[in-house]
Amino acid sequence: MDKVRLIAAPLSLYCCRVEMALRFKAIEYEYIHEDVADKSPMLLELNPVHKKIPVLLHNGVPINESLLILEYLDETWKENPLLPKDPCERAQARFWANYADEKGEDKEKAIATAVESLAFIEELIKGKKFFGGESIGYMDLALGWIPLWTSVMEEVGDMKILDEETFPFLHEWAQSFIQVPLVKSSMPPREEFFNYVRSTAKYLRSLAAKKL
Amino acid sequence: MDKVRLIAAPLSLYCCRVEMALRFKAIEYEYIHEDVADKSPMLLELNPVHKKIPVLLHNGVPINESLLILEYLDETWKENPLLPKDPCERAQARFWANYADEKGEDKEKAIATAVESLAFIEELIKGKKFFGGESIGYMDLALGWIPLWTSVMEEVGDMKILDEETFPFLHEWAQSFIQVPLVKSSMPPREEFFNYVRSTAKYLRSLAAKKL
Repeated sequence: MDKVRLIAAPLSLYCCRVEMALRFKAIEYEYIHEDVADKSPMLLELNPVHKKIPVLLHNGVPINESLLILEYLDETWKENPLLPKDPCERAQARFWANYADEKGEDKEKAIATAVESLAFIEELIKGKKFFGGESIGYMDLALGWIPLWTSVMEEVGDMKILDEETFPFLHEWAQSFIQVPLVKSSMPPREEFFNYVRSTAKYLRSLAAKKL
Repeated sequence: MDKVRLIAAPLSLYCCRVEMALRFKAIEYEYIHEDVADKSPMLLELNPVHKKIPVLLHNGVPINESLLILEYLDETWKENPLLPKDPCERAQARFWANYADEKGEDKEKAIATAVESLAFIEELIKGKKFFGGESIGYMDLALGWIPLWTSVMEEVGDMKILDEETFPFLHEWAQSFIQVPLVKSSMPPREEFFNYVRSTAKYLRSLAAKKL
């Protein structure tokens, strides 16, 4: 009997991505709440390099990095595959997942770059319900942070990012995606996430002000 | 009949990594030389996002990003596997490959970080000939830039990075790795690479001097 545990926190969209994958594959798991403001000795031991959540523990063996956890889950539990079968499509899915994550890391700093990267992704979703086709897959989960994150950033920053007119297909995907039951149940509550982003933004602004 | 082409340049260690993989798997390919100082319309069309080499063309379909090309080759040509079979070991190989690449990107800026990251990698190679075991694999190719790069940086900067006393196992791996015939034949000539690094370093210093 496999024992799966996930060290995570509810406001991390990286963790959320893994939770969705676990639910997508109907894998039972135990949720271990991590306090990122005061990291546990367990986390530091299991991910000594990045000291970051999420960490998946499978029969005691730790797997780090959310996208690598998706690959691991897909290789270990074959049912409900996340990645496409075709190696070329797999390469593309990985490429865009990495690309969006890299761009996303500068999120707070550069909305402009985020919008530019959305333009590429808009092309990929054109004419499809999900990136995975008729149902969700690896790329949907990998890009799953976009709907909630953009919607909250739009409100915090009083601006438009995932504009319906500029990105009609991505906008439609976002609507379909957040309706999927397992997605809905994995995403953090909007209000909590909103407060978290707002306080982070305030903190960053105060840092920037000090530098000036 | 598969048609494989590689858009590359001889001084790029990312390209070199892919060439080694192609040779490791005994895949015949055509080498298309790219002038990175004056990028070809072909490259810009095939990799519009990053506009970078290497690009693998398999029957006309482009695959970008050297690590993703390794995955693609491994999935498409099963013989001489690059990644280990066990999903957990695969996750670890991917983790360290990405980690070393991230750290490597700051190479010119932060040798200190590079040395710190070598300390982690030293632990991984302890007691093994290659990361892949008795013969080379994915991680050997992914970290294959280390021997030549560190040796050249040591000479350019008149310092020690891959110190034999600090990193005895990594040092030994580097020696074994560069002796592998397909590695030897894929690496750029040391002198050319040395000149390239030296002129890049000079250029960066001149930029830094201007800023002061």
